[in-house]
Amino acid sequence: MTMPRTGIGIDVHAFAPEGEPRPLWLGGLLWEGERGLAGHSDADAVAHAAANALFSAAGLGDLGTHFGTDRPEYAGASGTTLLAEAATIVREAGFEIGNVAVQLIAQRPKFGPRRAESEALLSGIVGAPVSISAATTDHLGFTGRREGVAALATALVAPVR
Amino acid sequence: MTMPRTGIGIDVHAFAPEGEPRPLWLGGLLWEGERGLAGHSDADAVAHAAANALFSAAGLGDLGTHFGTDRPEYAGASGTTLLAEAATIVREAGFEIGNVAVQLIAQRPKFGPRRAESEALLSGIVGAPVSISAATTDHLGFTGRREGVAALATALVAPVR
Amino acid sequence: MTMPRTGIGIDVHAFAPEGEPRPLWLGGLLWEGERGLAGHSDADAVAHAAANALFSAAGLGDLGTHFGTDRPEYAGASGTTLLAEAATIVREAGFEIGNVAVQLIAQRPKFGPRRAESEALLSGIVGAPVSISAATTDHLGFTGRREGVAALATALVAPVR
Repeated sequence: MTMPRTGIGIDVHAFAPEGEPRPLWLGGLLWEGERGLAGHSDADAVAHAAANALFSAAGLGDLGTHFGTDRPEYAGASGTTLLAEAATIVREAGFEIGNVAVQLIAQRPKFGPRRAESEALLSGIVGAPVSISAATTDHLGFTGRREGVAALATALVAPVR
Repeated sequence: MTMPRTGIGIDVHAFAPEGEPRPLWLGGLLWEGERGLAGHSDADAVAHAAANALFSAAGLGDLGTHFGTDRPEYAGASGTTLLAEAATIVREAGFEIGNVAVQLIAQRPKFGPRRAESEALLSGIVGAPVSISAATTDHLGFTGRREGVAALATALVAPVR
Repeated sequence: MTMPRTGIGIDVHAFAPEGEPRPLWLGGLLWEGERGLAGHSDADAVAHAAANALFSAAGLGDLGTHFGTDRPEYAGASGTTLLAEAATIVREAGFEIGNVAVQLIAQRPKFGPRRAESEALLSGIVGAPVSISAATTDHLGFTGRREGVAALATALVAPVR
């Protein structure tokens, strides 16, 4: 095996203003009854951070590089669509994907009960294991004050010989 | 060697209110004369983040999955006890542990002088190298205002053939 | 190949007060017309985080361990000088460097247009691939309020047999 490459990615989204009927999408799942996140996209920070970590490991930039405003066909694309496309781009550049690990940082929603469901969905999309864990920040910082959510991700890829 | 797997974990704890006599535990060490962190546990963010990173790499959830409120025998367990148990769980699931790296983010305590002591302790507990580094945030954010501390960790594990 | 080792590093710098003529250095590049960061060093958070991640992966501490106030010859050294020295120290300790990945977290500057230039510069300095991606925090937290910038980095090294 050749030496693999590590990557790191983050994604942050603010919650939509109170009273604005936005759905909450995280980890490819719809969270009914939860306050939604703002953004032009579906604001799925977990899927976005995973895609950023894959691009980072392969040295291919980030979401903005590939799906920015100069690519209007991706406007409004779901996080899972972008993640699937990121995995394809990374493989086409000559890399095997080892795994992706995401740490969601949010006071809400309570992710644990649906972790396995989200991991199965994203692992299928990436074609490699995607693990997701969740933490709160003890009510500190912007995630603790519920102004938004953050997701941190790392990924391992290896050049195909 | 098979392709290893990377993981990521975070842990955040708020400082206890002024005047509350809580000890400060970080990196498995007691920091005499330093303000303690709040929490039901010993609030050892370094040990907790390391455990979360190991679980993340192995795709086994996080501290809440294994030591949550439905496991009252772990109530009040030290961070080092949880970290030892996490390493055992990861190995029993079929993984070899490569290493764990933790980045403590805190204005206090000054970690450097006891880094080697903490690394030796946690490396022995995990049975693999645990490196710990420390950074401040230039007085910015909740760690900079000394409202709490954060620890970020990454880990590498590999499936045993 | 032996099992590689993963590392994690962070670096945070506050912006200099308004009206203070500090240049902005990030990713080894001078950003003309942008507000500078405060600090005794050049405050290049991207280069500093990359160096911290390399030290973390090799279990060699952090920037403070090697270039602290007891090493006055490094006072005022540029981030790229420190990063080059970090790569040398890691190799002299018996490690091969696989890659480094940095996630810049800042509302400004707009990094994307100069990403390739910065990656080429830092990759040459480290002697291994350095990838850099950039994210904003949707105006949340201290980076969102433009009080400072943060950079998170991960690195992979392997013991030379």
